[in-house]
Amino acid sequence: MKLGRLNHIGVATPSLERSIAYYRDVMGATKIHEPFDLPAQGVKVCFVDTPGENGTAGTQIELIEPFDETSPITAFIAKNPAGGQHHMCYEVPDIHEAKAWFEAKGARVLGEPRIGAHGTLIFFVHPKDMNGVLTEIMETPKEAH
Amino acid sequence: MKLGRLNHIGVATPSLERSIAYYRDVMGATKIHEPFDLPAQGVKVCFVDTPGENGTAGTQIELIEPFDETSPITAFIAKNPAGGQHHMCYEVPDIHEAKAWFEAKGARVLGEPRIGAHGTLIFFVHPKDMNGVLTEIMETPKEAH
Repeated sequence: MKLGRLNHIGVATPSLERSIAYYRDVMGATKIHEPFDLPAQGVKVCFVDTPGENGTAGTQIELIEPFDETSPITAFIAKNPAGGQHHMCYEVPDIHEAKAWFEAKGARVLGEPRIGAHGTLIFFVHPKDMNGVLTEIMETPKEAH
Repeated sequence: MKLGRLNHIGVATPSLERSIAYYRDVMGATKIHEPFDLPAQGVKVCFVDTPGENGTAGTQIELIEPFDETSPITAFIAKNPAGGQHHMCYEVPDIHEAKAWFEAKGARVLGEPRIGAHGTLIFFVHPKDMNGVLTEIMETPKEAH
């Protein structure tokens, strides 16, 4: 497998509204997408675009707020009340091949591939097997490339 | 100020050597730069390239290992023995204008601009004022764009 594009950095926040204001007013973000709920993953999501080289799309910031108190990021927010960097997400051409690859490397894939925030199949890999970083693997959206 | 390119994600590690092997063997990175010491910042550094869109350079991973026990990342590694996401670094066209901008927003800039791992001026901003994320601001290298 070859390293794919760093699609986004997941940043957990106690308040999407406050984080959106921060990225707009302090960081000067000009492309902030419409927030939406992803109850199947237990989060509310908002993507912020960063510019890549030569007018290409850069790595996005994926702001995630707990959808409710059963959210998988509730414990992270309890430990980091201001929020913080939560995961890194890389693209792959084929999600099932990627799953087999990581499993063959002895990395713990957390559950079966499921639809993620960009509408393509994703899975997470355990941070203990991924250099300390909770890592999301997502299939590249077909229309974007 | 307009949001600049996400130059790199700083990932702290107890062992550059082990992290380099991970990015090469598990993640399939093909462009791993030569590690080097940055004693003024208290770290050993190794950049790993990720691909951007259409053949452009993507956001890099900046692996950082404590240079010695007085390193500013020693406490982070003590708290996260496997390492983990440490900071996010954005480019700006002018470092002094950026410092004045963040200070005017009430964000705590940590020290004066100094030479960073890419050879241009950088500063860090306090995570409490930056949506929970330790944020590095770096002047875009002249030759790279």
